[in-house]
Amino acid sequence: MNQNMQKYLDKAEVLIEALPYIQRFNRKIIVVKYGGSAMIDEELQKNVIKDVTLLKLTGFKPIIVHGGGKEISRWVGKVGMEPKFINGLRVTDEDTMEVAEMVLNKVNKGLVRMVEELGVRAIGISGKDGALLRVDKKYSDGEDIGYVGNIKSVNADILFDLLEKDFLPIVCPIGLDDDYNTYNINADDAAYAIAKAVHAEKLAFLSDIEGVYRNYEDKDSLISELTVADARSLIEDGSINGGMIPKIQNCIGAIENGVSRVHILDGRIPHCLLLEIFTKKGIGTAILHNEDDM
Amino acid sequence: MNQNMQKYLDKAEVLIEALPYIQRFNRKIIVVKYGGSAMIDEELQKNVIKDVTLLKLTGFKPIIVHGGGKEISRWVGKVGMEPKFINGLRVTDEDTMEVAEMVLNKVNKGLVRMVEELGVRAIGISGKDGALLRVDKKYSDGEDIGYVGNIKSVNADILFDLLEKDFLPIVCPIGLDDDYNTYNINADDAAYAIAKAVHAEKLAFLSDIEGVYRNYEDKDSLISELTVADARSLIEDGSINGGMIPKIQNCIGAIENGVSRVHILDGRIPHCLLLEIFTKKGIGTAILHNEDDM
Amino acid sequence: MNQNMQKYLDKAEVLIEALPYIQRFNRKIIVVKYGGSAMIDEELQKNVIKDVTLLKLTGFKPIIVHGGGKEISRWVGKVGMEPKFINGLRVTDEDTMEVAEMVLNKVNKGLVRMVEELGVRAIGISGKDGALLRVDKKYSDGEDIGYVGNIKSVNADILFDLLEKDFLPIVCPIGLDDDYNTYNINADDAAYAIAKAVHAEKLAFLSDIEGVYRNYEDKDSLISELTVADARSLIEDGSINGGMIPKIQNCIGAIENGVSRVHILDGRIPHCLLLEIFTKKGIGTAILHNEDDM
Amino acid sequence: MNQNMQKYLDKAEVLIEALPYIQRFNRKIIVVKYGGSAMIDEELQKNVIKDVTLLKLTGFKPIIVHGGGKEISRWVGKVGMEPKFINGLRVTDEDTMEVAEMVLNKVNKGLVRMVEELGVRAIGISGKDGALLRVDKKYSDGEDIGYVGNIKSVNADILFDLLEKDFLPIVCPIGLDDDYNTYNINADDAAYAIAKAVHAEKLAFLSDIEGVYRNYEDKDSLISELTVADARSLIEDGSINGGMIPKIQNCIGAIENGVSRVHILDGRIPHCLLLEIFTKKGIGTAILHNEDDM
Amino acid sequence: MNQNMQKYLDKAEVLIEALPYIQRFNRKIIVVKYGGSAMIDEELQKNVIKDVTLLKLTGFKPIIVHGGGKEISRWVGKVGMEPKFINGLRVTDEDTMEVAEMVLNKVNKGLVRMVEELGVRAIGISGKDGALLRVDKKYSDGEDIGYVGNIKSVNADILFDLLEKDFLPIVCPIGLDDDYNTYNINADDAAYAIAKAVHAEKLAFLSDIEGVYRNYEDKDSLISELTVADARSLIEDGSINGGMIPKIQNCIGAIENGVSRVHILDGRIPHCLLLEIFTKKGIGTAILHNEDDM
Amino acid sequence: MNQNMQKYLDKAEVLIEALPYIQRFNRKIIVVKYGGSAMIDEELQKNVIKDVTLLKLTGFKPIIVHGGGKEISRWVGKVGMEPKFINGLRVTDEDTMEVAEMVLNKVNKGLVRMVEELGVRAIGISGKDGALLRVDKKYSDGEDIGYVGNIKSVNADILFDLLEKDFLPIVCPIGLDDDYNTYNINADDAAYAIAKAVHAEKLAFLSDIEGVYRNYEDKDSLISELTVADARSLIEDGSINGGMIPKIQNCIGAIENGVSRVHILDGRIPHCLLLEIFTKKGIGTAILHNEDDM
Repeated sequence: MNQNMQKYLDKAEVLIEALPYIQRFNRKIIVVKYGGSAMIDEELQKNVIKDVTLLKLTGFKPIIVHGGGKEISRWVGKVGMEPKFINGLRVTDEDTMEVAEMVLNKVNKGLVRMVEELGVRAIGISGKDGALLRVDKKYSDGEDIGYVGNIKSVNADILFDLLEKDFLPIVCPIGLDDDYNTYNINADDAAYAIAKAVHAEKLAFLSDIEGVYRNYEDKDSLISELTVADARSLIEDGSINGGMIPKIQNCIGAIENGVSRVHILDGRIPHCLLLEIFTKKGIGTAILHNEDDM
Repeated sequence: MNQNMQKYLDKAEVLIEALPYIQRFNRKIIVVKYGGSAMIDEELQKNVIKDVTLLKLTGFKPIIVHGGGKEISRWVGKVGMEPKFINGLRVTDEDTMEVAEMVLNKVNKGLVRMVEELGVRAIGISGKDGALLRVDKKYSDGEDIGYVGNIKSVNADILFDLLEKDFLPIVCPIGLDDDYNTYNINADDAAYAIAKAVHAEKLAFLSDIEGVYRNYEDKDSLISELTVADARSLIEDGSINGGMIPKIQNCIGAIENGVSRVHILDGRIPHCLLLEIFTKKGIGTAILHNEDDM
Repeated sequence: MNQNMQKYLDKAEVLIEALPYIQRFNRKIIVVKYGGSAMIDEELQKNVIKDVTLLKLTGFKPIIVHGGGKEISRWVGKVGMEPKFINGLRVTDEDTMEVAEMVLNKVNKGLVRMVEELGVRAIGISGKDGALLRVDKKYSDGEDIGYVGNIKSVNADILFDLLEKDFLPIVCPIGLDDDYNTYNINADDAAYAIAKAVHAEKLAFLSDIEGVYRNYEDKDSLISELTVADARSLIEDGSINGGMIPKIQNCIGAIENGVSRVHILDGRIPHCLLLEIFTKKGIGTAILHNEDDM
Repeated sequence: MNQNMQKYLDKAEVLIEALPYIQRFNRKIIVVKYGGSAMIDEELQKNVIKDVTLLKLTGFKPIIVHGGGKEISRWVGKVGMEPKFINGLRVTDEDTMEVAEMVLNKVNKGLVRMVEELGVRAIGISGKDGALLRVDKKYSDGEDIGYVGNIKSVNADILFDLLEKDFLPIVCPIGLDDDYNTYNINADDAAYAIAKAVHAEKLAFLSDIEGVYRNYEDKDSLISELTVADARSLIEDGSINGGMIPKIQNCIGAIENGVSRVHILDGRIPHCLLLEIFTKKGIGTAILHNEDDM
Repeated sequence: MNQNMQKYLDKAEVLIEALPYIQRFNRKIIVVKYGGSAMIDEELQKNVIKDVTLLKLTGFKPIIVHGGGKEISRWVGKVGMEPKFINGLRVTDEDTMEVAEMVLNKVNKGLVRMVEELGVRAIGISGKDGALLRVDKKYSDGEDIGYVGNIKSVNADILFDLLEKDFLPIVCPIGLDDDYNTYNINADDAAYAIAKAVHAEKLAFLSDIEGVYRNYEDKDSLISELTVADARSLIEDGSINGGMIPKIQNCIGAIENGVSRVHILDGRIPHCLLLEIFTKKGIGTAILHNEDDM
Repeated sequence: MNQNMQKYLDKAEVLIEALPYIQRFNRKIIVVKYGGSAMIDEELQKNVIKDVTLLKLTGFKPIIVHGGGKEISRWVGKVGMEPKFINGLRVTDEDTMEVAEMVLNKVNKGLVRMVEELGVRAIGISGKDGALLRVDKKYSDGEDIGYVGNIKSVNADILFDLLEKDFLPIVCPIGLDDDYNTYNINADDAAYAIAKAVHAEKLAFLSDIEGVYRNYEDKDSLISELTVADARSLIEDGSINGGMIPKIQNCIGAIENGVSRVHILDGRIPHCLLLEIFTKKGIGTAILHNEDDM
């Protein structure tokens, strides 16, 4: 029985370790951007949904924002459409938009189904419902790339009302312009905008990036916690570069608009979200205002 | 100015005629089953949405339940799928279900968009959201026809919560079985089940049927109001026959489960819903409990 | 049936035309000053009450403020009182005040009865109830004309509480001074003061004036919408003159204190209130802040 | 100082004596029928209003029901109307009803004024407001005596809503029949009906009756507390007789419909209401269910 | 009966005299510091509790703050502890603190019992419950005198929540420091801090002081009402001196932090609290902002 | 990193294992009877409080009921009191009751302090507060053993109100009889009575008993889950005997009065409460209605 008892005590310790985090973030909003491999691999998908559901049940108020990823491309092909490109960018013409919306809603309701199966009340909406996301047209170097939108405003009341009724909102990034045309939105942009609009305590990005490295070559140099000032230095000295620059700048923007902490997590690690939120060391990179918040 | 004044007075009269109806049904739930031609013709579609929005703004609590109609068949073809049949019925295999769900959600969000454009708060859900619609498998003469479901239960709280937050819920007829598989549901069945579960005051069917005729050959014999007892007689004496029988029996069932009035309306007549609800004579057939309710 | 159908469609159109107005003013307070011929002619009276009731049922929050008009003079005579005059103005001595209060309350409860008959919850109050209207003594060129009051303050909470309980408040213009003596108040003044105190969206005057004319001689020059700036010009150039000047200045005052729109309507036109609120062109003169509000 | 101190202690004792009564009836409804001399003598009137206001401020929920008494007769004469009689009963024809309503509303608003002056929120209503009192025609031995009504139903929600908003409702006994005609109601009847409809804890009658005597000749035989059974015996053995019989039967009816205690008080004794409610011995006759309630 | 009637009328007069005070302080918070002889004499104790209970029942929101007085010393002796002193002050070491806490909680629950016996909902808490009182260590001329605390903050929400649930909170003056150690607090200090934190309308001290004298030698010079400015003068000219100076300065501090009136009452006079609050002349000294408040 | 990762995944698994339990018992009341060794050993005490706090933070509504155990005996000796015995039972005379109450309140506020330190809102009450526990005198074989009470009624509203205000109530088992005398109550009895009165989902006993054994000699025969029927059999066949019989009968009584599950836990095992609630196998014995609930 001794060995069993040790196992028991280890279990209890993990639960107890989570206590201060549950305490600290109780009834706070956390926006989870869900994308990358974690959306494709079925096992990882189940893990993410379990994690978010656990956050809900332990008192957090999570909102999921997701993309459609490769599924859109697959269906565009399936219906025999010819992709068009401008400046190397895919053009979202009316037909493409129609397929994209269908796929995003399908993915959306698939996530709803998974959350419901775990006994939690979910509701899947797009930026059309309650006119949640209003956009204007985005141009790429002045070129018209079709129905791709920049978020102009977020109707946060919709989300507050759904949270008050104890729903876990799952949002797909589609918006309406002033003439009520349908637009596709980058899921990262939607997550940033929503986190700012609802004054989220946390914004977590699940993607295929391990986090931020002090030296990208050195896999041991992953940074656990990064202040806004540090992040700016790392951009200046070139440690952060390429596609990571706009990402990090968005994180900085979110923090400067009232989000307390942005987490960059590797969605390929099972339960990365749970481990980042509920354990001492965390597992990805947390960007925060200043050292006092560490 | 005399002529203008007459026009004015006529206008006032129409508004005043609506007064007792607004009064009587204020804050009551009305379930609108929306299908048939009214879903295909763009002008009719706008009219229906305007009508429902006006019901909302004058104090009713409408819930729209819609199908996908011919749009599903079109997309099944578009992606190059081979339809299968059993007993002459289309089989909803997994691939068909996937396409059907995509199309229904597309139609759903399209209706949301139209309502939002008129300045009313809409939310588009399927039976997956909040596990609204739970089903078991439906068989056709004992034959497996795939993912086609019979509604076992409706989680009415979801709709009450959304109505309380002043949303106009728009529901597409998809459900979940005990193992959380996705099922297609006949939209008429969904409307009946929802109307009963929320104790709707009214249930209105917009389809391509003019209403009930005392003598189907005689177009002047359209029945304005029909009691349950009368309806049963008309079935017995064969005046109501064929595909109308199960429809009328469903209407009777709804009334016996607490719905006060079921309206059968010809969706091809512009604003038929408004005219039925807000004017003295109505325009289709209303089925009601007994003569005292006339 | 064609002709019938056209009639139906015309009806629907009227209802649909009302849609944007219902939408815009939903749950907004509208103060209706009710006086003039519309109070004497029984048919017109019924029309006004129907109109206000319809406003209530379509989501507005109307408050009626009424006078007693010729009825007071009639009763003063009936009880054999000798009228006294100063500066040509009737003096409201204690006995006159007693009769005036009795008559105003009789008219008040008569209106309550008419609204109740239409199935809407009404409550008839004077400025004494909840000490709604507090006044000080009004002098005419320094002469004491008895119990005639200037409104010093409005206890708006009384009205908010009654509206919250879904009553349609009907107010007669009687007030209390600091020593709790009873005073008569000009009904127009009471309507202005109440509209300002409750931050009404609209204030509508039903009297025997057709509206404001650009050129009073030319009956075709009735002004549909008039900005505050325009109104001031018309006073300066003499187009508005005589007794209209204080009326218009009060309207300007109301708008500058938060009321969005003041309507001057000819109560002799049946349903003028409904037509002004629910139709495109309106029927009287609306005074508003500036051209952006048109 | 000794003498002063004794005076102080006596004061304290009175307040402390009231403690258990305040405690027991806290937040309970008490209907006060106010009539007789206490309505005519100005000093007594002030006392009654002070008493009811104190009841309100110490946590009770009083509702006043009042008549118009001799004031109606005075005004009927004043306007030069000829009284008509049937079976020796005054006939309330349309003109009489009009005057009666005017007088009752005048008295009503006068009481409102007095309560407001003491700093408590009052609202004066008749049975028309919110259609509080619905009646049918009362006949006297089969003879039509005009607009005199029997109460058919009381819309208690109106009173509950006003109490919830912390108003002290003051009700004058006017009602509406099914065709919305105006009727006069006996004030005692209105008080009984209202007490039953709102499930009042107490119903107190202020009139010119000292209470119930065991032997009417012997002024020392006033009964402090009387059970329903005792009351019935006293009627049977003739101790209670004449006009007291219907009064006492109404009291019995009220108690059997949920009112805990009916008090018959002599309104000519200053503060009789306060003394009955807040002191041990009381001052009139209390009728109650059985001895356990003493 | 005449004499009886006079006694009745005297009773009524006392109740009526209380009316304006009940009116003025309805739903206001009154903090009662309860100590001195009134805590030891059983009869006085009952009187105080009756008074506070009456305040609660007549609409006030009282909060009792009490000390343990001589009871603590008695128990310290009983368990055979050796008192330690520094600068002539008793040192509250850990053992003394343990006994003090036990005694204070015993007294606390004893008061709860007495209030409950009068039918009012009481709850006995210390500064530990809901971490109501947070302290830091108090030094006496730089010397460590053990677990004696200065109040740093009051968590007023705890009291607001209990008042909202209709409890009469009874608080004993124990607090927690930043490390959650237990500290004793002077009961006067606790009462001042709580009155300020909850923005009490009144703060009443029941102790063995008769009030403030203009000339301490002359027992007839007791001051009924004292403005802050007057109080300052009396300190300057030496009329107030010795231990009264810090007491009066605390009173001034409370008034300058939003408490309207501080009452200094002689707890040895039965019902002094009731007489001060509910009668014209009062019985102790009231300190108030300025003469306008008299 | 592999090893680290495994450790991470193990942690995640524990959290995920807790998911269905958090889900099932969310917002349910759990009454925890806290006594035995777990109250004496400081480390175990901290563990218990951490466990209950975690239950609170993950959405449960825990109520702690505790005894004073050996601490009472210690203080009775400390103050030099002579224990009296009847039938071998200690007699709770007035002096003993006074000490017992002081000790129980001391323990109570000590637990409050520990919960507050973990950032959760606690409130320590006895059965006197809000008159929570009403008792009558308990006799031992007809002998008077002093102030020892049987619970007659529980005023559950007190606990519901405190839970609604988000307090964690900590209750010590003291009650009041009809004359408001203070009585000691067996803590187990208090826990049973409270669990029944608040319709607790769970009732957990932390004591020095490992659970129920099928064969007490065989330590491997501990029963994980036991139905009411099984428990009755075990009593009949003598497997359960001695002091366990009344305990188990109380458990059965609780279940038959609406408590879903009673847990008997060994408080000497660290975090036994957490492990029983949040892990699959549990650690003590759960008594439940029938096998369907397993």
